[in-house]
Amino acid sequence: MASSKNLIYTFDQGDASMRDLLGGKGAGLSQMTKIGLPVPPGFVITTEACLEYFQSDDKWPANLWEEIKTNIKQLENTIGRSFGSNNTPLLLSVRSGARISMPGMMDTILNLGINDDIVGGLSRMMGDERPAHDAYRRLLQKYAEVVMDIPAHHFEDILTTNKAIAGIQLDHELSTAHLKTIINEFKDLIRDKTSTDVPADPWIQLRGAVEAVFKSWNNPRAIYYRNHQRIPHNIGTAVTIMAMVFGNVGNDSGTGVLFTRNPATGANELYGEYLSNAQGEDVVAGIRTPEPIVNLKHANPVLYNQIAEIADRLENYYKDVQDVEFTVEHGNLFILQTRSAKRNAHAATKTATDMVKEGLITKEEAIARVNADELTQLFVPQFDSGVRENAISTGNLLARGFGASPGAATGVAVFDATRAVQACESGKRVILVRPETNPDDVHGILNAVGVLTSRGGVTSHAAVVTRGLGIPCIVGCEGLSIDPASRKLSANKLTISEGDPISIDGATGEVILGHLNTTAPVLKDMEEAQSLLAWADEFRTLGVWANADTEEDAKRASDMGAEGIGLCRTEHMFLGHDRLPIVRQMLLNASAAQDVEEDREDDGSESNLTLFNKALTDLEELQKSDFTAILRVMGTRPVIVRLLDAPLHEFLPQRDNLLSELTELKASNASLSEISNKESMLQHVETLRESNPMLGHRGCRVGITFPSIYEMQVRALITASCDLMDQGVTVKPEIMIPLTSHVNELATLRKSLTEVASKVMRNRKINLAYKFGTMIELPRAALTAGDIAKESDFFSFGTNDLTQTTFGFSRDDAEAKFLKDYLEKGILPVNPFAVLDRQGVGNLIHTAVCQGLKAKNDLEVGICGEHGGDPSSIAFCHHEGLDYVSCSPFRVPVARLAAAQAALGVIE
Amino acid sequence: MASSKNLIYTFDQGDASMRDLLGGKGAGLSQMTKIGLPVPPGFVITTEACLEYFQSDDKWPANLWEEIKTNIKQLENTIGRSFGSNNTPLLLSVRSGARISMPGMMDTILNLGINDDIVGGLSRMMGDERPAHDAYRRLLQKYAEVVMDIPAHHFEDILTTNKAIAGIQLDHELSTAHLKTIINEFKDLIRDKTSTDVPADPWIQLRGAVEAVFKSWNNPRAIYYRNHQRIPHNIGTAVTIMAMVFGNVGNDSGTGVLFTRNPATGANELYGEYLSNAQGEDVVAGIRTPEPIVNLKHANPVLYNQIAEIADRLENYYKDVQDVEFTVEHGNLFILQTRSAKRNAHAATKTATDMVKEGLITKEEAIARVNADELTQLFVPQFDSGVRENAISTGNLLARGFGASPGAATGVAVFDATRAVQACESGKRVILVRPETNPDDVHGILNAVGVLTSRGGVTSHAAVVTRGLGIPCIVGCEGLSIDPASRKLSANKLTISEGDPISIDGATGEVILGHLNTTAPVLKDMEEAQSLLAWADEFRTLGVWANADTEEDAKRASDMGAEGIGLCRTEHMFLGHDRLPIVRQMLLNASAAQDVEEDREDDGSESNLTLFNKALTDLEELQKSDFTAILRVMGTRPVIVRLLDAPLHEFLPQRDNLLSELTELKASNASLSEISNKESMLQHVETLRESNPMLGHRGCRVGITFPSIYEMQVRALITASCDLMDQGVTVKPEIMIPLTSHVNELATLRKSLTEVASKVMRNRKINLAYKFGTMIELPRAALTAGDIAKESDFFSFGTNDLTQTTFGFSRDDAEAKFLKDYLEKGILPVNPFAVLDRQGVGNLIHTAVCQGLKAKNDLEVGICGEHGGDPSSIAFCHHEGLDYVSCSPFRVPVARLAAAQAALGVIE
Repeated sequence: MASSKNLIYTFDQGDASMRDLLGGKGAGLSQMTKIGLPVPPGFVITTEACLEYFQSDDKWPANLWEEIKTNIKQLENTIGRSFGSNNTPLLLSVRSGARISMPGMMDTILNLGINDDIVGGLSRMMGDERPAHDAYRRLLQKYAEVVMDIPAHHFEDILTTNKAIAGIQLDHELSTAHLKTIINEFKDLIRDKTSTDVPADPWIQLRGAVEAVFKSWNNPRAIYYRNHQRIPHNIGTAVTIMAMVFGNVGNDSGTGVLFTRNPATGANELYGEYLSNAQGEDVVAGIRTPEPIVNLKHANPVLYNQIAEIADRLENYYKDVQDVEFTVEHGNLFILQTRSAKRNAHAATKTATDMVKEGLITKEEAIARVNADELTQLFVPQFDSGVRENAISTGNLLARGFGASPGAATGVAVFDATRAVQACESGKRVILVRPETNPDDVHGILNAVGVLTSRGGVTSHAAVVTRGLGIPCIVGCEGLSIDPASRKLSANKLTISEGDPISIDGATGEVILGHLNTTAPVLKDMEEAQSLLAWADEFRTLGVWANADTEEDAKRASDMGAEGIGLCRTEHMFLGHDRLPIVRQMLLNASAAQDVEEDREDDGSESNLTLFNKALTDLEELQKSDFTAILRVMGTRPVIVRLLDAPLHEFLPQRDNLLSELTELKASNASLSEISNKESMLQHVETLRESNPMLGHRGCRVGITFPSIYEMQVRALITASCDLMDQGVTVKPEIMIPLTSHVNELATLRKSLTEVASKVMRNRKINLAYKFGTMIELPRAALTAGDIAKESDFFSFGTNDLTQTTFGFSRDDAEAKFLKDYLEKGILPVNPFAVLDRQGVGNLIHTAVCQGLKAKNDLEVGICGEHGGDPSSIAFCHHEGLDYVSCSPFRVPVARLAAAQAALGVIE
Repeated sequence: MASSKNLIYTFDQGDASMRDLLGGKGAGLSQMTKIGLPVPPGFVITTEACLEYFQSDDKWPANLWEEIKTNIKQLENTIGRSFGSNNTPLLLSVRSGARISMPGMMDTILNLGINDDIVGGLSRMMGDERPAHDAYRRLLQKYAEVVMDIPAHHFEDILTTNKAIAGIQLDHELSTAHLKTIINEFKDLIRDKTSTDVPADPWIQLRGAVEAVFKSWNNPRAIYYRNHQRIPHNIGTAVTIMAMVFGNVGNDSGTGVLFTRNPATGANELYGEYLSNAQGEDVVAGIRTPEPIVNLKHANPVLYNQIAEIADRLENYYKDVQDVEFTVEHGNLFILQTRSAKRNAHAATKTATDMVKEGLITKEEAIARVNADELTQLFVPQFDSGVRENAISTGNLLARGFGASPGAATGVAVFDATRAVQACESGKRVILVRPETNPDDVHGILNAVGVLTSRGGVTSHAAVVTRGLGIPCIVGCEGLSIDPASRKLSANKLTISEGDPISIDGATGEVILGHLNTTAPVLKDMEEAQSLLAWADEFRTLGVWANADTEEDAKRASDMGAEGIGLCRTEHMFLGHDRLPIVRQMLLNASAAQDVEEDREDDGSESNLTLFNKALTDLEELQKSDFTAILRVMGTRPVIVRLLDAPLHEFLPQRDNLLSELTELKASNASLSEISNKESMLQHVETLRESNPMLGHRGCRVGITFPSIYEMQVRALITASCDLMDQGVTVKPEIMIPLTSHVNELATLRKSLTEVASKVMRNRKINLAYKFGTMIELPRAALTAGDIAKESDFFSFGTNDLTQTTFGFSRDDAEAKFLKDYLEKGILPVNPFAVLDRQGVGNLIHTAVCQGLKAKNDLEVGICGEHGGDPSSIAFCHHEGLDYVSCSPFRVPVARLAAAQAALGVIE
C-alpha cells in the first residue's frame, strides 16, 4: 500500500479500513472494487489533500493536478473512452465524502466533461440526443450553482417557464428541442450574472469542480450540520472522481436505492426503490414515483437476483445493514455507493439482536451497533395507533412546526408559564403555548406535558430545555398565530382558547386539535431492547443510577434498570400546591425567627418563631411521606437525597407580578390591609433578591444561615428510614449537601446534622447505616477535594453547576445570548452543557477523584448532572473510574448501553 | 529551656522569643524579668494549654491545676505573702494574652484572692481600709461579670445610685462606708441573678478566673476582632498570673502608661500619662484626668529618670517603640507590661526611618516595621487645618457615626444613586446619603466623593464597597434622620435638603454642615515615606503597576511610583454624560445592524446600520482622546487596555425605572410617540436582561457577537499610539481581552483585531510594538492556560471574577447575604474577595502560571484584581513569580512596601 502522503488512491488501491483518508464513499467504492462487485472505475483525492488545501490558504497541494491528470488517463485506458473527446467522451462524477456521512451537506457535480461540441459526440455514443442534452443541461445548472455561486432558483425559473410554454408538467417530458432552448437560456443567464461562461474545456471544468467540493466542506449548512451532529470541523472531505454511467439511456436502464434490511422496522427483507430510464437524482427528487424494489422480483428476476446477491455479500462483508445506490446501464448493473444504513432506534435494536441470533455478529458488536443516545426514541410517548390519522383526516391538523423534542403529548393549551403552574396544580395536563420561551418560563415548562412555540429553531430555549427534560416540544410553528394577551391561538381557520384541548407530536411537529390518547412504551415490553441491555450489563463496569424526585420517578427508574437514586432533589417537594403556602409561611417568619435565636430576650418576636416552627413541622411530615415512598421503591438500593439547594426567593411570588398586583390594588382602592400584606410580601421578596442568584444565597449557604431547614429535612429522612426498617424494609439513605466550596461548610453541617440523625435513631433504637456526602459542583470544591473527602462519605459531581462556574457561563443566559454563535463559529466544538468539557471541567473532576480517593479509599464517587445521560460524558466517567452515573429515568437505558460501549472501547 | 509540653512557665523561664507559647504579654514580662527590670513575680499558662482545653471540650489539661498550685506556692515564697491568708494576703491578677495583641477583646480579672475575711487583713496590710474595700468591690464586680455572666450595667446602676445618694460624682470619692454598702448590694444582686455567691475560697476564684480567660478567646467580640484583623482563630490565648501591686495605696503610689516615642507623630520623645494614688484601670476609665508623663520630670525627677532609663533599655532591646504599663507602690516602680506601640502610619513611617538614621535598625528592619496596609492612611484627603474645629465650634456638627472608610470629603447631599450620577455628570461633587446601600446603589457610590448612611455597621455594603474604592464613608450614623422620599435629612435640629453642602470625615465619623476644604496629601511631600519606599524598591523583585481609567488616575499612579498601567478599564469611558447617549444609540441599533451584516439583501435595515456606524465613529474619536491622554502620561511604561467587559445592559436605563416611567406616562396621557419610545427602550432592556449577568453576555462574548465594538476600540488605541509616536512619544500599549474561557475565543479575536491594528499601522506607516493578551479570570482559562498562552503575549489574573467563579460566590450577593455569617462562624478565615484564597484560587493561578510559562517563556504575567493591593495577596504573587501586581493608584505605596516585605520574608 502506498504511503499516507499519497494525494490520490485509485479504487483498487483502497479498502474499507481507509475511511479516514478516503471518506466513507471512497472507502466503500474501493472495498466493493476489491471484493469484485461491479463498480465504475475511479479514484479518490484524500482528505489530507483537502486539509492541505485549507492550511495553505486555498492553494492546491503540489502535484495534485498532475496526479489527477495521470489518473484520468488511466481511467480512459480502463474504460476505453476519452475525457474531452468528441467521439467517445468520458464523463465524470465528482463527489464529496467525509469520514463521517453528512448526507446532502456538501457539493457534488455529475456529467462533468460536456461542452457544445462534446454533446454531439455524446448523443452519438448514447444513440439518442435527448439524454445527452439532458446531461448537458444538468451540468450547466449544477456547475453554475456550485462553482459560480448563481442561486439555484434562477435555473428553476427557466425550467418552469419552459415547461409552462410547452404545456408539460415534468422535467423528463421535455423534448430535445426544449432542452436545447433551455441550454441556451441557461448560458445567457450565466453570462448575465457572471460576465463569463461555464468553461468549455473539460479539464478546467474538472479543476473548478474539485475546488468547489473542497470548499463545500466549509459552507454554512455543512458547518451547522457538523455542529448539530458533533462532527469535528478539522477532518475535511475526500473527493471521489468516477466514470459516469447512465441509467437514462432506455428502458433497459435505470437507477435505484436499496436497503439490505428494513430501516424502519429492522425486518430482514430487501427494501428500496427502482426507477427505470432515469438518473439517480430523479429518485431523490421524487419527479416520478419509483417502484418498490421487491416488484423487480417478477419484472426482472435476473436483475433482482443479482441485486439480492450483492446485498447479501455487502451485509456479510460489513456485518451491518447497508444503504446501496446502483444504476443499470443497458442491462449492466453498477454499484455507485454503499454505506451503513441510517435506521431508527427500533430498527437498530432489532437488527443488532437479530444479527447476533443469526451468528453474523457478536454481542459486543451488537452493543457497538446501536447509537446509545437514540435509545430514548424507544420510550417517548406515542399517539395510540390510528388516532393521529383519524384526527388529520377529519381536518383537525392545526399546523406543522419543527419537531424539537420527540414524543406525543396531549393537554389543555395555556398561554402563560405561571398559569401553567396553577393549571398543573389543579390537576390539569398542560401544553404550554408561547410565541417563544425564555428562562422566566422555566417553571411553566417544568409543569407542562408539552411545549409549543410559534418562533425559534431547534436550538431555541424551548427546544433545548425540553430536550433536556424529555418533554415533547414543537418550535418555529409559524402557521400558528399566538396571542398571549387574549390567550388565544389561531391556525387553519380554527381558534383555540386557553383551556381547550390540543395534542402535539414532538417528532413530526404536528399540532392537532383535541385530546389524542398517548401511551408511553415500557422496557419490559421490548424484547430486543431488553436483550441488548442485558448484554450491555454484562460488559459495563460503571453503575447506572437515576435522578428521581418522586415515587413515580423512582418506579420508572427502577423499571429502566436503575441501580440507585443518585439525586433526589427536595425542591420539587416544596413546590406542590399543598406545600408552597407552608414554605412561604416558613420563609416569611424565618428571618424573625433567626433574630430570636440570636437574642432570646426579645419576646416580641416569639410569634414569628412559633409560626416558623409550625411551618417546619408541617413540612417535615410532608417530606417524611415523600421520602418513605421513594425509599420503599428502591429498597436496598441507595437513595441520595440532596438537601435544599434552590435560593429561597424561588419559593416566593415573582417580583414583577407582585409589583403589578400592588399597582392594581392601589388603583382599585383596595383595603389598606390588603395593600399592606402585599407590600410586606414584596419587601420580603426584595430582601431575598439577588444580582446573580446562581452564585448567591443557595445550597449549603442557606443550610448554614437557616439551620432549621436542613435539620428538618434530615429528621424527615431518617425518620422515614426508621419507619421502613421497623416494617422490615432495608433502606440505604444518603444525605447530600449541595454547593460546598470549603470543607468547613461541610464540617459544620456534618456535625449538626449528624446530631439530628443520631437523636432520631436513639429515640427509635435503630442503628441505620446512612452516608453523608456532598456535591462537587464548584471549582474550589474540586480543587480542595482532598480536604473535603475527610468530611464526606461520597462525592457526586454536579456537572451542570460545575460547567457554569468553570466556564463562567450562566446556562440560562448563555444558550440564548451567545452559545449559538459560539457553536456556529466553531469557537466551541459542542455545547458544554450537553457534552462534558473534558479539558476544563473534566480536569477538575479528575483532580477531585484523585484527591478524594487518596484521602479516603472507599469514597463513593458518581455524577448527577445532566451529563450523566450523555454517552460521550458517560465514557469519560468510565475512564475516570467513577462508581456510577446518575441520569433521568428515561435515559437509564442510554447510560447502560453507553457504559458498556465505553467499557468495550466503542466510544471514548 | 523546658520542653514545649510544659503547661506553665515562670517569668524567669521565658523570654521574648516565646511569644507563640506565652502570648505577647507573658513573653514581654519574661523578657523584662530576664533583663532585670522590676516586674512583679508571676507565671504564664501556655497557649497550648488553652488549645488543649478547647480540644478536649473544655476539660482542664491533666496536671494543670496542680502545676498552678505549685507555682502559686513559689510566688508566695518569692514575695512573702500568702494566697488566701488573712494576714499577709497575696492578691493575683489573671490576664489574657495571645500571640497577637487583641487589646480589650478578652477578659482579665484583678484583685483575685479577697473575701469577707481577707478584706480585713488586706486593709491592715495596706494600712487603709478604703483601697482594700475598693479592691474587693472591683473583684466582685469583674468576677460576676466575667465568670458569672451578669451584665455589667446592673453593677453600674448600683454605683450610680449610691453616688447620687452620697451626692458625689466620681468613683474615687466613695468612702469606705459607701464601698461597704455597695459590696453588700453587689452580693445581693449576684445572689438574686444566680442564686449563688462569688466563691469565698480564693482557690475556687482562681480556677474560675483561669477558665473564664480561656473561654474569653471565643467570646463574640474577640471572634469579630480576629475576623476584622485577620487573626487566625486557632492560636488560643495564654494566661498570665502575677502578684498584684497597688498604685492606690497613697500619694507615693500611682500608675501610668508610657510610649517610648510619640505614637501619633513619631517624634522621639517620651509620651504618656501618670495618675497618682490610682489603679491601672482608672487611667483607662478616664475618671480623673492624668498628668502628662513629662510633668514627672519636675514633680518626681527620680521616678522620671528611672522611667526614662527603662524606656531606653526597652527600646534598645526591642528596637521598636514600646507601649509600657507601670505601677508605683509606695515609691517602688513595677513594670506590668510592654508591647510594641500601636501607631498610625505617619508615626510608623517616621519612627522606622528615624531608627535607621539613628543606627538602631537596618533598612530591612525598617521595611518590616511598617504595616503596608496602613500606608493608605497617608494619602486620604484631610480637612484643611483648623476648618473642622471652626465648624464644630460654630455648631455645625450634625452627628457622629462609625468611620467606615477614612478620608475627608465635601460635596452636596444627594439621596438617590441615580440622581447622584446625574449630579456628578453635571459637574457636582456628591455625598451620597442613604439609610443604607445595596448593590443597586453602586453606580451612585462610584460617582460620589463620599457616602453617608444612617444604618449598617463597618461591614455593611456601603462600608465594604467604599473601603475597596477608597471613598470616604460614614455608616450607622443613627443621629441622622434620613427621608429619601422627601430628599431631606435632619439632625442636631438642622435640616439638610438635597443639594445642600455637607462634609464628612470617614476617619472620625463626623458629619458637618457646609463645605469644608480638603487636601489630598501627595507622596513627594512626605520625606520619610519616600525614603522608606525607595528602600522597599531596592529589595522588591515584583513590579508594581496601577489600575487607572483616566488621565487623572494615570498621573496619580505615576506620582505614587507605578511602573505601568495593569488595567485601564474602558467601561467608564462609555459612561460619561457626553458618551452615554452615543453608547445607547449604538446599542439600540446594534442588533439590527448585526442582522444587516448577516443578510445584506435586506435593505430596510440600512438606516440602523448607518446609525450604528455613526455612533461607533463618534465613540472611536472619544476613546482615542482618552487613550492618548493616558498613554502620554505613562510614556515608555506599559499601558494595558482592557476591551469592553461589562454586559451591555449596564449602559441602558434601569428596567425598574423604565417600568415606572412608563406607568407614569400612561397615567398622564402622554403622547403615543413618547409612550412608544419608552416601550421600545424597555423592550431593548428586556432583550438584554439576564438571570445571572455576572456569568452572562459580557467580556469577549460581546466582542465576538458584536465584533464592531472591539474593532473600534483597537482602532482608537492603535491610532492614539501612532499619533503619539508621530509626536516622538514612545508608548507601549497592550490590548487585553476579558473573560476568556476557551483559547478559540482568543484566537478568533486575535486574528480579527490584529488585522485592524495592522491596517492602522500600514496606513500610518508606523511599526508599533504592542502586546495582545488576556485576563485569566475564569477557572477554565486557568486550567487550559497552556493553550491560551499560545495566543497570548501576557496573562493578567482578574482575581475578583476568578474568586467569584471558583467559590461560586456572587460578590454583590455574598457579602450581604451569607459571607458575614461565614466569617463570624469561622467557616471562612477571611473574606476571599479581600485576601486571595491560596488553596482554591491560588491553586488555579499556580496552574496557569506554570502552564503559561511552559508554553511561552517570555509570557508577561500579572494580577489586576483588587487583591493586587492586599499585602498577603501580594506576598503570594511574589512567591508565584509574577512580573507585577496592579492595584488602585492610592494603594501603589502599599504594594511597593508589601512587595519588599514579601521579598524579605517579612510577610508570607
